[in-house]
Amino acid sequence: MHYPEPISKLIESFMKLPGIGPKTAARLAFHVLTMKEDTVLTFSKALVDAKRNLGYCSTCGHITDVDPCHICADKSRDDSMICVVQDTKDVIALEKMRDYNGKYHVLHGAISPMDGIGPEDINVSSLLVRLQDETVQELILATNPTIEGEATAMYISRLVKPSGIRTTRIAHGLPVGGDLEYADEVTLSKALEGRREL
Amino acid sequence: MHYPEPISKLIESFMKLPGIGPKTAARLAFHVLTMKEDTVLTFSKALVDAKRNLGYCSTCGHITDVDPCHICADKSRDDSMICVVQDTKDVIALEKMRDYNGKYHVLHGAISPMDGIGPEDINVSSLLVRLQDETVQELILATNPTIEGEATAMYISRLVKPSGIRTTRIAHGLPVGGDLEYADEVTLSKALEGRREL
Repeated sequence: MHYPEPISKLIESFMKLPGIGPKTAARLAFHVLTMKEDTVLTFSKALVDAKRNLGYCSTCGHITDVDPCHICADKSRDDSMICVVQDTKDVIALEKMRDYNGKYHVLHGAISPMDGIGPEDINVSSLLVRLQDETVQELILATNPTIEGEATAMYISRLVKPSGIRTTRIAHGLPVGGDLEYADEVTLSKALEGRREL
Repeated sequence: MHYPEPISKLIESFMKLPGIGPKTAARLAFHVLTMKEDTVLTFSKALVDAKRNLGYCSTCGHITDVDPCHICADKSRDDSMICVVQDTKDVIALEKMRDYNGKYHVLHGAISPMDGIGPEDINVSSLLVRLQDETVQELILATNPTIEGEATAMYISRLVKPSGIRTTRIAHGLPVGGDLEYADEVTLSKALEGRREL
């Protein structure tokens, strides 16, 4: 054994985080020793609080500390649009944009037969319940532009079409600030396919 | 605000660690939510334990949860050699080698007039006290091969010389597995200067 026990335990804990190997974990653990006791206590409490006090919104599935979440509870938001995303982090990315004022629905995954994830394993049934309410007029499918994301978008779109609700898919193309030269073939082909009149 | 409060607090805490920016902090915080509650509790406890239960050995200055530390308390180790290092992490690096069986002395820094760190700011006086005991025959100066480390080694060596204790400096040269082509000039010059008969 090289480290005193309290520090080796802390290193082990840090190593459970993604992308943190033994060297980084040791560096972080030694840094903790130089931090103020208050800061360490806050950190320790934040870990437990985040794990214990956060859950999923029973309406949209977004991560939240109150139910319904602040987005579902916000009366100023447009009830007629629901944006369907794969992950809670996607909601946060879209919210940062400050452009979208509708509601969300988090699937917590995408259909992926290779990984044994079928439609029943993602949060689709509660979406269908939400759509029975007649206020929803548009469903924006914002799943990732991957095979699984596309398949999920297709699946939901087919499921929803008969009800007459407008279903749209977010645009795929060149990212703003990106360089045409470095774009991959599929992105370029999507960008060309999705061209619009100026 | 984009994140529910418990998670934004956790992100803030992660951002206090070195080399962790807002994006990595968010990724780590979201990972914590997917971890088992037990694991998170262990992590939280490890943080506080490491901060509260670790101190410095009153003899050598190494980080420890018992005083004297397990190295100072180890009767099987050679009392006649003391290896002087700048940092507790250096002790751990040397211990990993499993070649050295003497004692250590941790300075917790190096003399650096530019940063206002003088001999009285590093753990030298307790080293001199240890040297008064006549068992010590050799002092290995293993401070870093930087200007500050060299200056500290020179300072201690001059201080100790009159007492007749042998003071040595660890070798500088090409690292094993390193490439001569990519070595910097100073390392090469040290390697040449320190050449030995085969």
